[in-house]
Amino acid sequence: MQSEAIIERPEIRVGDLLLGGKQVVMMAGPCAIESFDQLVSLGKQLAQMGISVLRGSAYKPRTSPYSFQGFGKEALKWHSEAKREHGLLIETEVLDTRDVELVAEHVDLLRIGMRNMQNFALLKEVGGCGKPVILKRHISATLEEWLLSAEYLMAYGNSQVILCERGIRTFETATRSTLDLGTMVAARLGSHLPLIVDPSHAAGKRELVPSLAKAAIAAGADGLLIEVHECPSEAVCDGRQALLPSDMAALMPELAAIATAVGRRL
Amino acid sequence: MQSEAIIERPEIRVGDLLLGGKQVVMMAGPCAIESFDQLVSLGKQLAQMGISVLRGSAYKPRTSPYSFQGFGKEALKWHSEAKREHGLLIETEVLDTRDVELVAEHVDLLRIGMRNMQNFALLKEVGGCGKPVILKRHISATLEEWLLSAEYLMAYGNSQVILCERGIRTFETATRSTLDLGTMVAARLGSHLPLIVDPSHAAGKRELVPSLAKAAIAAGADGLLIEVHECPSEAVCDGRQALLPSDMAALMPELAAIATAVGRRL
Amino acid sequence: MQSEAIIERPEIRVGDLLLGGKQVVMMAGPCAIESFDQLVSLGKQLAQMGISVLRGSAYKPRTSPYSFQGFGKEALKWHSEAKREHGLLIETEVLDTRDVELVAEHVDLLRIGMRNMQNFALLKEVGGCGKPVILKRHISATLEEWLLSAEYLMAYGNSQVILCERGIRTFETATRSTLDLGTMVAARLGSHLPLIVDPSHAAGKRELVPSLAKAAIAAGADGLLIEVHECPSEAVCDGRQALLPSDMAALMPELAAIATAVGRRL
Amino acid sequence: MQSEAIIERPEIRVGDLLLGGKQVVMMAGPCAIESFDQLVSLGKQLAQMGISVLRGSAYKPRTSPYSFQGFGKEALKWHSEAKREHGLLIETEVLDTRDVELVAEHVDLLRIGMRNMQNFALLKEVGGCGKPVILKRHISATLEEWLLSAEYLMAYGNSQVILCERGIRTFETATRSTLDLGTMVAARLGSHLPLIVDPSHAAGKRELVPSLAKAAIAAGADGLLIEVHECPSEAVCDGRQALLPSDMAALMPELAAIATAVGRRL
Repeated sequence: MQSEAIIERPEIRVGDLLLGGKQVVMMAGPCAIESFDQLVSLGKQLAQMGISVLRGSAYKPRTSPYSFQGFGKEALKWHSEAKREHGLLIETEVLDTRDVELVAEHVDLLRIGMRNMQNFALLKEVGGCGKPVILKRHISATLEEWLLSAEYLMAYGNSQVILCERGIRTFETATRSTLDLGTMVAARLGSHLPLIVDPSHAAGKRELVPSLAKAAIAAGADGLLIEVHECPSEAVCDGRQALLPSDMAALMPELAAIATAVGRRL
Repeated sequence: MQSEAIIERPEIRVGDLLLGGKQVVMMAGPCAIESFDQLVSLGKQLAQMGISVLRGSAYKPRTSPYSFQGFGKEALKWHSEAKREHGLLIETEVLDTRDVELVAEHVDLLRIGMRNMQNFALLKEVGGCGKPVILKRHISATLEEWLLSAEYLMAYGNSQVILCERGIRTFETATRSTLDLGTMVAARLGSHLPLIVDPSHAAGKRELVPSLAKAAIAAGADGLLIEVHECPSEAVCDGRQALLPSDMAALMPELAAIATAVGRRL
Repeated sequence: MQSEAIIERPEIRVGDLLLGGKQVVMMAGPCAIESFDQLVSLGKQLAQMGISVLRGSAYKPRTSPYSFQGFGKEALKWHSEAKREHGLLIETEVLDTRDVELVAEHVDLLRIGMRNMQNFALLKEVGGCGKPVILKRHISATLEEWLLSAEYLMAYGNSQVILCERGIRTFETATRSTLDLGTMVAARLGSHLPLIVDPSHAAGKRELVPSLAKAAIAAGADGLLIEVHECPSEAVCDGRQALLPSDMAALMPELAAIATAVGRRL
Repeated sequence: MQSEAIIERPEIRVGDLLLGGKQVVMMAGPCAIESFDQLVSLGKQLAQMGISVLRGSAYKPRTSPYSFQGFGKEALKWHSEAKREHGLLIETEVLDTRDVELVAEHVDLLRIGMRNMQNFALLKEVGGCGKPVILKRHISATLEEWLLSAEYLMAYGNSQVILCERGIRTFETATRSTLDLGTMVAARLGSHLPLIVDPSHAAGKRELVPSLAKAAIAAGADGLLIEVHECPSEAVCDGRQALLPSDMAALMPELAAIATAVGRRL
């Protein structure tokens, strides 16, 4: 047995960034995009910490039709304009086949949310969009199903697929989802694709996020996707799991220490 | 938010060892005790690597009545006699209320297996045994139920309880169980008890064990319980998840690096 | 306590059929539409047995991109043309927002498959289609999430929503999914919508289907959706769970007896 | 395919009662035994309805050590003495290997609760007790594990094993457990043992019990185990899921109608 692969895995390039290489890529930002100013202010803080990608959703898939559904196109524009101010790469979720082209024009990295992991019409459309894509694992997807959804993206032309583990649905209610690092490690042994982890949605509570973020890097994650908000109590969604910028800043050296311990860097 | 507790947590003493302190305590050994010679030979190797506790089951809870059930009392004797040769602390599982006294005489640390987490007659008996006890989480137990089972041990007189996360049962079959570090972290914020992790039973496949072991320490585990066997292909049970001694030796410095990164030591 | 509701529940009309009334509505047919002749031949047999609706998928959501994806528009045409021959009402699944209008023109009843239960773009589009819709519960959806997805359809204009329980994903592998009649009964006490059950996808094996079909009617289901194929071993998908027409014919009087026992009729 | 077995299944005799034959055997009673008078009063009412077995726990396995643990030996005596008054067969749960002999002397039918389904020491002891035994499925047990636990009882000498499905643990919280009739039906095709269903623990709420009880008989259950209490709001445990005697009486003809519909009798 050997715990490290001998073979070099192909890396995925997003702007100047390489995913799947030595660097553990940090992505952070609000759950939903709330304003242009929010993006600029938070983006600048995150840039200073060494974060590479600003996450933020323009379109929000919500369990209830009466919940906030995102600012849509307006938020997409804010996202791409704020980029000139903070200089980070940007990502966002795409929900509708009819939005794929527009979204791909505005961001560096598309995200397919867990609920759409088996929305095959969307996978086919994103397969042809020409931009790298983060494919979140559904809360009830097996490893095999997750990899076959990635296969849809690749079969339809998009080889720049980044897998994202974000927790599965189990009987346990102490956490929002059960972060499944075992399957992430198994994915590593069965797929060439880079793997990132979203500890925020798994935990559902900000006080659990730092420990799970460290665990993910120790287990071999190629990146993290973390929710950060300047005022979680006023966030339009998922404030309970968002770190403050100061929490995120404090966490960075801790994550860097783990990265170093596994022969990587932040 | 702060990711470190300010308050000192009470430590549990097992021989010269402190659980719940700075040291991440390493426990390793075969699934089942197979012979006196096995214990001496493997124990000596593990001692040299810096392992503190030799695990090994004399009594085996098996799904089928036709599977090997352990060498029982004979194996208990081997376990305590081999201790003089290798010098490690020893632990074993207790299955039956009628065996508690005998088991407690022979080992330093009792283990309650996951299937018996809610065997309340056994919990009450072990509550009065006077030895520290590892309480494994059942594959379907919530955090609350796990802590209430610990409460049985404490209510019946045993305050030396060590919680052990070993994976929960979910729909995913890529791993034997789903290691639930999120709940381990939540347990840490809701209980004073030391927490260890068994990545071997969670993974079910040896190639996944090193990454999960590192993740557990990064997430804050106070110790690890890992299966090691000199010839896994001939192990009477669970050989598929056992590391070779050479794997374990190679893993130790990697684990030590993670421990250092989180301000602890192996 | 009383086991029967006093208040009359609103019924949903599909052609001459009322869903949610005295009649337990029978829907049956192949998983995927394979040919025009298949639909005519099977439809005629089912009509003679007293089945009301012919199910059949033109578009197939498949886990793998390399599996058969359905005959699409061609199959839609076969479906509506075969209707003139067998005289049954027809239903089919819709997968893509861009197909909703076309599908709604061809069939009496749309189906939203379990994978799309939280495809909110699709729900909104189907909300405006003017045809009754079957909303399958996702294998990992809670009752609350299922009802909120129905709420999307209703909030966007479609009040003719029929809920369909088809089994949830659990650790058990003896069946394909775990049919959850408890939640179906709970849904009955918390929603005015008609509820049907698909025992075929839950069971995954034809020999389990008859017993589960009877159980569903006994538990209060307003209808059943059952897979039937003239030659299951040659079915393009899910043949293992399809009944033969002769099985279905034999089952009908058994189902009728249960319906009578609960004060309804087939 | 044929939905009925041709081969006669062996029946299990409990007193004058045959389990696994034409009759659907009704067992009902309180969760915990609370007094001698309770047993006499409720037992007489249940006897008049046509119930065959009075259930009631003398020993209670409780998640918390601070909850009511049962009246123990005292309650066992009440149970066997009350039998002379109401004339029903009686059953109770056994928790501890050391109680097996005493319990077997007092009741007609032992019950192994779900938490002890893999308490192998207990299974072995009950294997030698000479009385029929109900083996409840653990909330996280696969069909295979359940049957192998029955195999323990049989391998240790007890062939009078009755399997009891009582719901499994899933993510769904609308019910206490998820009643798994699919696996019950699969068990029927893979085991000669009689199968009963406990809809009360599965449902967790009395208003769901009647529909699930009917479903169980329709699916082929050989018996039902239902919680009934004269004053649920004052029950020492699980009052929320207990039917009133008047509910039970009203349910009996509804169950009889389903039994008739599947060619059996109550």
